[in-house]
Amino acid sequence: MPELRKDPVMGRWVIISTERSLRPTSFAPEPPTKTSAHCPFCPGNEENTPPEVFAIRPDGHRTPNTPGWQVRVVPNKFPALQIEGALDRRGEGLYDRMNGVGAHEVVIEGPAHDTDLADLPLDHLTHVLTAYRERVVDLNRDRRFRYVLIFKNHGARAGATLEHTHTQLVATPIIPKNLQEELEGSRRYFELKERCVFCDIVQQETSEANGRRVVMESDRFVAIEPFAPRFPFETWILPRRHADSFQSMSDSHEQREFAGVLKETLQRLNRALNRPPYNFVIHTAPVSEGELEHYHWHLEIMPQLTRVAGFEIGSGFYINPTPPEDAAQYLREIAIEV
Amino acid sequence: MPELRKDPVMGRWVIISTERSLRPTSFAPEPPTKTSAHCPFCPGNEENTPPEVFAIRPDGHRTPNTPGWQVRVVPNKFPALQIEGALDRRGEGLYDRMNGVGAHEVVIEGPAHDTDLADLPLDHLTHVLTAYRERVVDLNRDRRFRYVLIFKNHGARAGATLEHTHTQLVATPIIPKNLQEELEGSRRYFELKERCVFCDIVQQETSEANGRRVVMESDRFVAIEPFAPRFPFETWILPRRHADSFQSMSDSHEQREFAGVLKETLQRLNRALNRPPYNFVIHTAPVSEGELEHYHWHLEIMPQLTRVAGFEIGSGFYINPTPPEDAAQYLREIAIEV
Repeated sequence: MPELRKDPVMGRWVIISTERSLRPTSFAPEPPTKTSAHCPFCPGNEENTPPEVFAIRPDGHRTPNTPGWQVRVVPNKFPALQIEGALDRRGEGLYDRMNGVGAHEVVIEGPAHDTDLADLPLDHLTHVLTAYRERVVDLNRDRRFRYVLIFKNHGARAGATLEHTHTQLVATPIIPKNLQEELEGSRRYFELKERCVFCDIVQQETSEANGRRVVMESDRFVAIEPFAPRFPFETWILPRRHADSFQSMSDSHEQREFAGVLKETLQRLNRALNRPPYNFVIHTAPVSEGELEHYHWHLEIMPQLTRVAGFEIGSGFYINPTPPEDAAQYLREIAIEV
Repeated sequence: MPELRKDPVMGRWVIISTERSLRPTSFAPEPPTKTSAHCPFCPGNEENTPPEVFAIRPDGHRTPNTPGWQVRVVPNKFPALQIEGALDRRGEGLYDRMNGVGAHEVVIEGPAHDTDLADLPLDHLTHVLTAYRERVVDLNRDRRFRYVLIFKNHGARAGATLEHTHTQLVATPIIPKNLQEELEGSRRYFELKERCVFCDIVQQETSEANGRRVVMESDRFVAIEPFAPRFPFETWILPRRHADSFQSMSDSHEQREFAGVLKETLQRLNRALNRPPYNFVIHTAPVSEGELEHYHWHLEIMPQLTRVAGFEIGSGFYINPTPPEDAAQYLREIAIEV
């Protein structure tokens, strides 16, 4: 069974996936991506994935695990964490460990093997967001979990091992380190100011005197290059109105508007950077903490243009050759077909 | 001039190297490494680097910037930070910035273009460590700096852009985030226990009942796979005796013993993993904090076997397919020629 282990100095939990233990010889330089012939995510190959846990079938097809779906969510066939079992916490001298209970699911964003998320029609992209939301709401009911992480690895260089467009969900009994730090940082700011730091960021970035880091704005959302980005063309999308969690976006108009901003932002990045590999991570409040007045959900997109060295990971120190003001101007001005 | 900017939520400083501002088209998929013909680090090409700030010339050659050196330290030709100027701290609404004052140096570890650090004779490797030490001691005298980071990117996949073996030093007016967190984590442990957490780790890992994560031991040093490693075959080398800083290793016998442990550890990794790309980072106390009883210097080696996705960087959440106990056993048992 996989195991969660905590570094006693940094307080960082890692998953040691003991079931998949690799011998040194099994590290391939670049994992090959599967092409459509044998793609387990393509329609007709539904039996090659575990049975679906959610699907959107707009045309009245009602039989699970058969073609006709537009969005399909399945458990990961090689999960990093295991869904069965109770949490078991144990010490080992000064160390802490937990058995690796959790959920690991895949959102297959569409039936077409070669379609990019950014190129899905707006209605379809809104359905993808509905699938995220439904799964988060469902996984939040499981009292063993403290966080549901939604993330996308797009392109082999960004860590995708299957090329058919998909998103991953990982539900964990711990809060991932960076999210924990964001929660603490925003709590400290609130204690000092009685205001949400992300609300202040939105305010400052969109003020008339400013706007140099804005990529695009809609009524309810804003896409910006953050003030201190780790990566060239790192882009965040935030709701203007304070809301602590992604799933609080229950209104379908709001969801559709977010889909529109996400689509246009990804299209601008695709056009500016020639369809770069990228990752995005949805930053949202932990499971069942009640409504947080200091935390503000958002999505962070990280194009993978430069190689991130272990150095950056080892030190937490990033060198970014592209000022966010230049990146924002470039993304604003580039012509796209919407 | 480059700029240091702080993320208002995470408290993370990043360098925005505005002088090297890149347009989107200038991101090459893989930066090519320079071969020996035009290598600025090879003997005879000394005029292609900025003038040396330190060198070891054992054979009586005394003319700087000419061949005859065994180890040579030069300022980076394309520094991430700029050595001239006073520190200037400024706010911008809720944001914080500083001008990018700092030092960025390169330790050229030997004259031969193709030699791996792990294959240098023991005396030579000891000289490399002397060069690190001399530069740290010198940079620590500059009151503008709070940290001197020593790190190595080995191999193109680990971020090296020049193949001639070298180490980098970056002196910064801030403490890199992960080091700051390590300092805080170890301080909290000390407050609780009145003991150094790293001393306790060394104690627990080398106790008779344990030893499953030990790679090798000498009188004064131990190489282990940490309990909660982020990466397969992540390996740490720690001094057994409490010491907060790398440069406290003033005794040349101790330095030579450390060189021996580093050499054998890298050789075991090279043999086990077929000369993997790797990074190492020396974790040491900040400039001029006095002797810290809670902090313990060490070196962290991170082989780059799997692709680190932006996901890990975005969430701080690592999935490691290799249990450290398996990796340690493998590294202990593999035959090497010492």
